[in-house]
Amino acid sequence: MRKVWFNGDIVPESEAKLSIYDSALMFGDMVFEMTRSFNKIQFKLKEHIDRLFVSIKYVHIPFKYSEYDIHNAVNEVVKENDPYFKDNDEHRIMINVSRGILPIYREVEEVGTNVIISDFPLRWTVAGMGELFNTGIDMVIPSQRSIPARYLEPKIKSRSRLHLQIANIEVSKYSGSNNWALLLDDNGFITEGTGDNFFIIKDEKIITPEGRNILRGISRAYIFELAKQLRLECIEKNIEPFDVYEADEAFITATPFCILPVATLNKRIIGKQFRIVINRIVINNLIYQWSENVGVDIVKQIKEWDKENKKEECTSPYQFKG
Amino acid sequence: MRKVWFNGDIVPESEAKLSIYDSALMFGDMVFEMTRSFNKIQFKLKEHIDRLFVSIKYVHIPFKYSEYDIHNAVNEVVKENDPYFKDNDEHRIMINVSRGILPIYREVEEVGTNVIISDFPLRWTVAGMGELFNTGIDMVIPSQRSIPARYLEPKIKSRSRLHLQIANIEVSKYSGSNNWALLLDDNGFITEGTGDNFFIIKDEKIITPEGRNILRGISRAYIFELAKQLRLECIEKNIEPFDVYEADEAFITATPFCILPVATLNKRIIGKQFRIVINRIVINNLIYQWSENVGVDIVKQIKEWDKENKKEECTSPYQFKG
Amino acid sequence: MRKVWFNGDIVPESEAKLSIYDSALMFGDMVFEMTRSFNKIQFKLKEHIDRLFVSIKYVHIPFKYSEYDIHNAVNEVVKENDPYFKDNDEHRIMINVSRGILPIYREVEEVGTNVIISDFPLRWTVAGMGELFNTGIDMVIPSQRSIPARYLEPKIKSRSRLHLQIANIEVSKYSGSNNWALLLDDNGFITEGTGDNFFIIKDEKIITPEGRNILRGISRAYIFELAKQLRLECIEKNIEPFDVYEADEAFITATPFCILPVATLNKRIIGKQFRIVINRIVINNLIYQWSENVGVDIVKQIKEWDKENKKEECTSPYQFKG
Amino acid sequence: MRKVWFNGDIVPESEAKLSIYDSALMFGDMVFEMTRSFNKIQFKLKEHIDRLFVSIKYVHIPFKYSEYDIHNAVNEVVKENDPYFKDNDEHRIMINVSRGILPIYREVEEVGTNVIISDFPLRWTVAGMGELFNTGIDMVIPSQRSIPARYLEPKIKSRSRLHLQIANIEVSKYSGSNNWALLLDDNGFITEGTGDNFFIIKDEKIITPEGRNILRGISRAYIFELAKQLRLECIEKNIEPFDVYEADEAFITATPFCILPVATLNKRIIGKQFRIVINRIVINNLIYQWSENVGVDIVKQIKEWDKENKKEECTSPYQFKG
Amino acid sequence: MRKVWFNGDIVPESEAKLSIYDSALMFGDMVFEMTRSFNKIQFKLKEHIDRLFVSIKYVHIPFKYSEYDIHNAVNEVVKENDPYFKDNDEHRIMINVSRGILPIYREVEEVGTNVIISDFPLRWTVAGMGELFNTGIDMVIPSQRSIPARYLEPKIKSRSRLHLQIANIEVSKYSGSNNWALLLDDNGFITEGTGDNFFIIKDEKIITPEGRNILRGISRAYIFELAKQLRLECIEKNIEPFDVYEADEAFITATPFCILPVATLNKRIIGKQFRIVINRIVINNLIYQWSENVGVDIVKQIKEWDKENKKEECTSPYQFKG
Amino acid sequence: MRKVWFNGDIVPESEAKLSIYDSALMFGDMVFEMTRSFNKIQFKLKEHIDRLFVSIKYVHIPFKYSEYDIHNAVNEVVKENDPYFKDNDEHRIMINVSRGILPIYREVEEVGTNVIISDFPLRWTVAGMGELFNTGIDMVIPSQRSIPARYLEPKIKSRSRLHLQIANIEVSKYSGSNNWALLLDDNGFITEGTGDNFFIIKDEKIITPEGRNILRGISRAYIFELAKQLRLECIEKNIEPFDVYEADEAFITATPFCILPVATLNKRIIGKQFRIVINRIVINNLIYQWSENVGVDIVKQIKEWDKENKKEECTSPYQFKG
Repeated sequence: MRKVWFNGDIVPESEAKLSIYDSALMFGDMVFEMTRSFNKIQFKLKEHIDRLFVSIKYVHIPFKYSEYDIHNAVNEVVKENDPYFKDNDEHRIMINVSRGILPIYREVEEVGTNVIISDFPLRWTVAGMGELFNTGIDMVIPSQRSIPARYLEPKIKSRSRLHLQIANIEVSKYSGSNNWALLLDDNGFITEGTGDNFFIIKDEKIITPEGRNILRGISRAYIFELAKQLRLECIEKNIEPFDVYEADEAFITATPFCILPVATLNKRIIGKQFRIVINRIVINNLIYQWSENVGVDIVKQIKEWDKENKKEECTSPYQFKG
Repeated sequence: MRKVWFNGDIVPESEAKLSIYDSALMFGDMVFEMTRSFNKIQFKLKEHIDRLFVSIKYVHIPFKYSEYDIHNAVNEVVKENDPYFKDNDEHRIMINVSRGILPIYREVEEVGTNVIISDFPLRWTVAGMGELFNTGIDMVIPSQRSIPARYLEPKIKSRSRLHLQIANIEVSKYSGSNNWALLLDDNGFITEGTGDNFFIIKDEKIITPEGRNILRGISRAYIFELAKQLRLECIEKNIEPFDVYEADEAFITATPFCILPVATLNKRIIGKQFRIVINRIVINNLIYQWSENVGVDIVKQIKEWDKENKKEECTSPYQFKG
Repeated sequence: MRKVWFNGDIVPESEAKLSIYDSALMFGDMVFEMTRSFNKIQFKLKEHIDRLFVSIKYVHIPFKYSEYDIHNAVNEVVKENDPYFKDNDEHRIMINVSRGILPIYREVEEVGTNVIISDFPLRWTVAGMGELFNTGIDMVIPSQRSIPARYLEPKIKSRSRLHLQIANIEVSKYSGSNNWALLLDDNGFITEGTGDNFFIIKDEKIITPEGRNILRGISRAYIFELAKQLRLECIEKNIEPFDVYEADEAFITATPFCILPVATLNKRIIGKQFRIVINRIVINNLIYQWSENVGVDIVKQIKEWDKENKKEECTSPYQFKG
Repeated sequence: MRKVWFNGDIVPESEAKLSIYDSALMFGDMVFEMTRSFNKIQFKLKEHIDRLFVSIKYVHIPFKYSEYDIHNAVNEVVKENDPYFKDNDEHRIMINVSRGILPIYREVEEVGTNVIISDFPLRWTVAGMGELFNTGIDMVIPSQRSIPARYLEPKIKSRSRLHLQIANIEVSKYSGSNNWALLLDDNGFITEGTGDNFFIIKDEKIITPEGRNILRGISRAYIFELAKQLRLECIEKNIEPFDVYEADEAFITATPFCILPVATLNKRIIGKQFRIVINRIVINNLIYQWSENVGVDIVKQIKEWDKENKKEECTSPYQFKG
Repeated sequence: MRKVWFNGDIVPESEAKLSIYDSALMFGDMVFEMTRSFNKIQFKLKEHIDRLFVSIKYVHIPFKYSEYDIHNAVNEVVKENDPYFKDNDEHRIMINVSRGILPIYREVEEVGTNVIISDFPLRWTVAGMGELFNTGIDMVIPSQRSIPARYLEPKIKSRSRLHLQIANIEVSKYSGSNNWALLLDDNGFITEGTGDNFFIIKDEKIITPEGRNILRGISRAYIFELAKQLRLECIEKNIEPFDVYEADEAFITATPFCILPVATLNKRIIGKQFRIVINRIVINNLIYQWSENVGVDIVKQIKEWDKENKKEECTSPYQFKG
Repeated sequence: MRKVWFNGDIVPESEAKLSIYDSALMFGDMVFEMTRSFNKIQFKLKEHIDRLFVSIKYVHIPFKYSEYDIHNAVNEVVKENDPYFKDNDEHRIMINVSRGILPIYREVEEVGTNVIISDFPLRWTVAGMGELFNTGIDMVIPSQRSIPARYLEPKIKSRSRLHLQIANIEVSKYSGSNNWALLLDDNGFITEGTGDNFFIIKDEKIITPEGRNILRGISRAYIFELAKQLRLECIEKNIEPFDVYEADEAFITATPFCILPVATLNKRIIGKQFRIVINRIVINNLIYQWSENVGVDIVKQIKEWDKENKKEECTSPYQFKG
């Protein structure tokens, strides 16, 4: 059975739980990171841990571990769990850091920071997504806006984000079975999906919203690296829905699936309508280069898992049927 | 040992935990209520349960229980736990409703709504507060603003509220040991504390912010009832810090302590400075009437618990040392 | 054939056209009113004409007619057209006032204000709506917000309102065939539909948004009159979606159909879910009283037209298939 | 007599009209383009048609023509009309695309998209402007703000723009006979005139507002081309009135007159006050280069038309006497 | 020669000066009040002094005097100066309270609060206004907005208000010689003039903006008293320019002239245009009642001063020729 | 005794005063500049005078002097005062330009612009700051926001800035004796201190807020020059508190002390916590280069003045004990 690292101990996954008196549950007062491996090697682990430490500093959680300690703990968890994984599985790691039980409940449980590192097969997260690399996803702008950073800092990866669930619920009410939310901020600028960053391509230039009212994703940062490799310009800029309607291509990024093409925004086809085949030249190049760099054919791997799972369901990882 | 009601079962309090894969922990996606008793009789239980059901409807959590079911479950928990309570204790009930584990983690645990009803002595929450009925509290307006309702609905009692912890941390950095946060919205109107509603009194009129960017507290609603009893006018109105500096008295309300007087806002004394003794005529009448109505001397009870606990600490229930 | 009143002349309806060089087409620079009759008697004609004159004053259109002139012109048009109407028809009047051709195009056509008064059967507008009095409509909050009055005055009934079409298109993409848009303003307050005003009923009190970022409808004003007749309280107040979810009933008003019940908002049922039959006591009283006052059974009339037309289509009057 | 292209037919200009039941008149629901020729050759026609197609896509108007079809239609109209034009005239083309009559009025007229392409002498639009190339225009910031793009997309060239007429009316009330409106957005950034884009020059750098709350003019884009030719830097940047007061030169661009210098903003002279002669080095170079590129002396041509017309009036093309 | 009260001493008016190193001049860090007399009796002096003390508290200026002390000081100044006043003069008192010289400049002058009470003939302030009671004033909404209270509290009467001068300058550029500024806030609500409060009358109801982004004038408060005397309803409500165009009458209030009628807003006549004589029934009643109450014919007094001064100039007291 | 230049005359410093009827005191209607010398040579005097002239133009103060005149006047004041300065003193010049007495008070004093140029030892301003170059300062974000430029232009150096005093008072209430305010704008972007500009350094890149809601400081501009000398990139960009928590170093600039390191923001240490010695490599290089360029060891000079003054007080130059 899978194990988790809990405040320094290795315990069964079934014990990866927190008390209802924990600040994590009382206030959404928990920061976290989620990673993935390629060929069982963690990708950009240092970047994830660095961001975790900024999150911890931001919310003033007392913390006794170093970056180095967390790095080792992740490796320990992977080693512990790998026997329970299939050969073609990848390790998806989740690191949770909570402030611990509120002082007034100290009779129930010991006060102090809780750190939990868990590990599960990436295929859970991307189940049914293989086909989306062909069809692209349908993005919809819900009435729910991104919470501006001055009210709640999205650059901190925290658990206080019910509004993203509300956005997911909202777009699930649209006609069509494959709707993903794309949020706007209070200026009408595009921000991000409910777990992914957004890009457009216009005249071979790759454009993504400024790193303001969004989580500055690690996959997002990697697109800048790939663009450099491919000698493409990649910039941050405020963009609005209008810019998407004028764009040639659009895609999202996230750790589990890396890159997914976007077919439509608000039911308007992205790219020129009269083309029989919608060309996704830049997107395909990015996916190809990423696969090359990590030694895994990203699309093929996900499609194979789908075949093994015989799973038809094809949804956003955060979507649910309300 | 204390027990909790967990999806229909009575289990030990130590099992009142949720998986890290529960939507409650992944998204702050949990709604809740907290009540108190007077002489061991739950106060305004119906109002709390009604609000819980609006919260559940708002976030689209599938729910199979009726208001009646929850009412009975609360009573069952109280009965179960009373033997572990002292005679002069009061029951503080917490009802948590979570959407349950995200579907992609269904291998770890069964999918489905989680309902947990727990019960603990109210004295935990109000420990050290007795003296505050004399001194009043010091409120401070932090830089952190209330999240406007259009981004995240505060009238829903949800766990997605890290920003309130940030506000608490911020005011704990002010000089003085007894600072409570009082938030403004984006228009500069006063909203609420991080777990309490705010009132001023001006020319014998009781004024509280409109029910917009706040939780519409059940104690807040009760002030309107008390005012009627005392033949005082009580109204909702946008108020700004300036109005507080012009006010005669100010206080906050919350379920655990009912009413606490506010001595200062941003280090400016509320009421006329030249009075040797600061008069709190209306506040005292409200506390007196409330105590009469419920058959418990609210202030005396808390002071007695303090005496028994020999506890000097005197802080906001949500405060912590960062 | 139907006729229109065009700058003082009676001409065939087919000539009720404006040049592409008219300011009405160049800038949406035209104000208007639309009325209806009950038993062929115009309803609240004076109020419509008064509002028209405020609109004209607001946009500085030079105007040579008096309120009295317009009143007579309306009557003239009705008289002229009645022979072409069925006995059970009602007259829907539209009064358009445009600034006329832009001066630089004066070679094409004479410069000067254009006034057109047309008349057509009300049954066109309400076709297929009969069933909606039973089922209620489904309102959806689109991402498109109301334009705040400080940018474009909605209290002026002008033709510059493409954003309302955008809102209609947006909600037509939701699942379900009967979606009507309900807009929010930049504070998240409910404003209005794309051609109707919105009301909720809570504890027998009728509540409608403040007359700020909305057209102050004449049917809306009539609800205040009806409420007085029925001894119900009717007030203006900022309301948010949360308030609708807590409400007992909800409805919209507009000149053609008077009152329509709202069944859901954002797919959440309005009123208590556990009721088998959704009670609409106040709404039904309002419709009954209105019908009494004007001597026409409003619902029955529309259902009869539907029967005559054998029309199944059941949509918002402004909706279309994009 | 001049002709127009109307849904594929060539008809007299006097028939270039739309029914009052057309969505164009009901909702300002029409998109358009206006071009000009140099030496009777259309300038940047492809860019205008491309933008038209984005507008059509944005407002979801069903459209059966290709870009190529529209291109041909424009040429057909020009050819048809040229005999009615003087030798030294230029062709100003207007392409209007409306959604057509609302479905409920289908008895009045056939439902379906309306496309009208008209053609008239450019001299109408620029009448009396010759002198402005010497004196510059006086810009005034009205109280009316630009509608932010999140409410109504200004990058779509639509007819729903009454607020621009309101701005024109407002500045016509200022003292002085030659006031043109310059609008601000809700952040206080300069956006555009009521039919023109705005530029400043500071230290030989050409600066224009970011392409956000404005129409991204085709003349505006051409300035970037000219700047490249002249080896001048040209950038997009948020600018405020303060920046204009510090600037060396300022000008506006629009299709009919290409470039006009701005003499004052809010009655403050632009550029250093102590210079007897106000130097407009960069502006003059831009006009010169533009004239060179198109083979027409832009200023001279307009001045000659003025001479022929003996027209003294010297106003904004959108201005009128309220 | 006139005298002033300066930190407890009576000194010549020519010494009523502050060092350039005083916080008043360095930061606009001075609060103040200005009063007037009727028949040489100060009007509402208590209310002015009370407001002064709230201002002092708000800006944390250390202050050693009581309300009583200031009251006496005012009387002392009046007594001292009366011999230099004409019999038909009124005393206009100005009380200035500055924080004093910044500590780093303590070598230049002694550190400490500065209090200056001066006294001059009211006729200076109202010179040339007599005619305005007949013609009414022309109000214009400038592009300059009121600073929202959350940035700078207008309910404090402070000297930090350059933006009001900017507004005055702006409206002086409009055509017409008698323009007074009327400001909007960031929501487009009417706030106040640059030294006066604004009222409209609609259907015999007196309406004035909510006391939020304005100075809550003492004359404004007196209108509520007068309305009670006259059995008229007087309420606070958000109003927009549209409401003014629909209003029957409009006026402003300020201490020196009490009430002035408003003839136009943005060059649109207030009240029905077709009336030959513009009726100002409510305004006239208010002026009459005010005069009765204070034993001075307010209008006649100002007109007599004008006659004595043979002064034609007729302007806002804050206006200047820029 | 020190002298000032007052409207062309040299008068004693004790006469550097303005009447309470001066527009400077009535409206905060005065613009100004403050400079410093290095080795008694004025630094960037031209830039200060240029900015002064833009301020004068902006507020429409009639002004008869040229830039050249003011330059000479400054030199005259310095020459006049140098005998009263110590050898190791530096000259701090303050130039004040006021619109003069309001016209209605013309009996009290002559109407007309007032210009005052004063001169005092820089050591007054920087007293006690020597130690701050070692410890760094503690910056705190107050609840008070910067006034957005659209309400009051901060790029004009005017005296209407009470809100900055309010911010100073607010941060003086925090625990710790060395708190300096750092303001945010309404978007949550960092703007400036109450008399200083803010910079961060991240990966050797120097970043400062865009020149929008700030005074564009002359020391701030000089950092760009120094960065060029040191071959460091220096850019303007919107930054938020999050960016500061991620930064390597942070500092402020102002004319008197040039550069001061920032140790903490909101009690969070800037830079990596685990470093025993906090490295300020870039800051130290900037200070070193500045000192080299002007021939004065900036830090040493201030520390020596501290030694001479035996002054321990170490505060913001604008701070005071409220």
